Amino acid sequence: MSIFLALVHFPCLNRRGEVVATALTNVDIHDLARSGRTFGTAGVYIVTPIDLQLRMIEEVLGHWTQGQGSKHERRAEAMRRVRGVPSLQDAADDIEKRTGSRPRLVVTGAQMQGQLVSFANLRKQLREDDTPVLLVFGTGWGLAPEIIERADLRLPPIARDPALADPSGPYNHLSVRAAVAIALDRLLGDR
Amino acid sequence: MSIFLALVHFPCLNRRGEVVATALTNVDIHDLARSGRTFGTAGVYIVTPIDLQLRMIEEVLGHWTQGQGSKHERRAEAMRRVRGVPSLQDAADDIEKRTGSRPRLVVTGAQMQGQLVSFANLRKQLREDDTPVLLVFGTGWGLAPEIIERADLRLPPIARDPALADPSGPYNHLSVRAAVAIALDRLLGDR
Repeated sequence: MSIFLALVHFPCLNRRGEVVATALTNVDIHDLARSGRTFGTAGVYIVTPIDLQLRMIEEVLGHWTQGQGSKHERRAEAMRRVRGVPSLQDAADDIEKRTGSRPRLVVTGAQMQGQLVSFANLRKQLREDDTPVLLVFGTGWGLAPEIIERADLRLPPIARDPALADPSGPYNHLSVRAAVAIALDRLLGDR
Repeated sequence: MSIFLALVHFPCLNRRGEVVATALTNVDIHDLARSGRTFGTAGVYIVTPIDLQLRMIEEVLGHWTQGQGSKHERRAEAMRRVRGVPSLQDAADDIEKRTGSRPRLVVTGAQMQGQLVSFANLRKQLREDDTPVLLVFGTGWGLAPEIIERADLRLPPIARDPALADPSGPYNHLSVRAAVAIALDRLLGDR
């Protein structure tokens, strides 16, 4: 079983539902690296087609893996698994080069609809099937439809147990850092 | 069932194991507010004894609940449940005032040892017992021993499923944002 993460900055939606490239967020890189390493994922791809942002990723990774920051061994160990790539296609190509197999694309989202695979079912599949999996998270207002349509599997939105009464009504607005952590725990955690 | 979160900045440990007050991190306030609201917690306490930091919390909350930021309704709704308090004692007093009962103190930590309650067991207890619970998270290198010793219950460190082989060996260095998200999902999520 090898699982990779992708954090996609393009193509994503903005609040008006337009397809845009979102800005890089430094703390996302750190949190995905640390959550990825804790749950034993094989790598983390930060996806952005914008040259300047790819250079920023290289600078951040350089600082933590070779520069001053590399004295912090635990952080360096997590950051060494991160790569910046211009597209999701490049991430999939890189995984094929590293593992010999094309990864299955699994997308996530707070608004995901249609035919979904449950976390429990995917957790089971991961233990029985050796095909690598690329777990894809959007930024901004979520992944653009073209990514969701291309996916092999779609995971349901993360929510509170519906058996619990909640007088305030439903709400689903996790940060991507929180969504990644929960998804990894549901698939790979010691629960 | 009413669950509250506390993010403690003092007393915490630094990397040398000394008891210190850690600095406020803006993104922690946002992520805890959003995760807390998604899973239906009753409130989030940001604990710091430092006056300047308490004023910073007030400013951030003011911006998002009354100022410019309040136009973002989802964010405002999450931020309205956050309060800055000088100590964990103040958080517990506030909960007693709001609910009529003294909360049970439940602590978390990446190094937690001794007698632990499993997430599954606490999840069950929360559904059977009306006593409010204050779920406590540390910053820096974790909660100081004096907080852990005072707690009613201790949750185990979050980790990868031990049944999965991991050639890289164990690693447990989640951000507090990730740890809070996972803990809430394990206790209150639709898993």
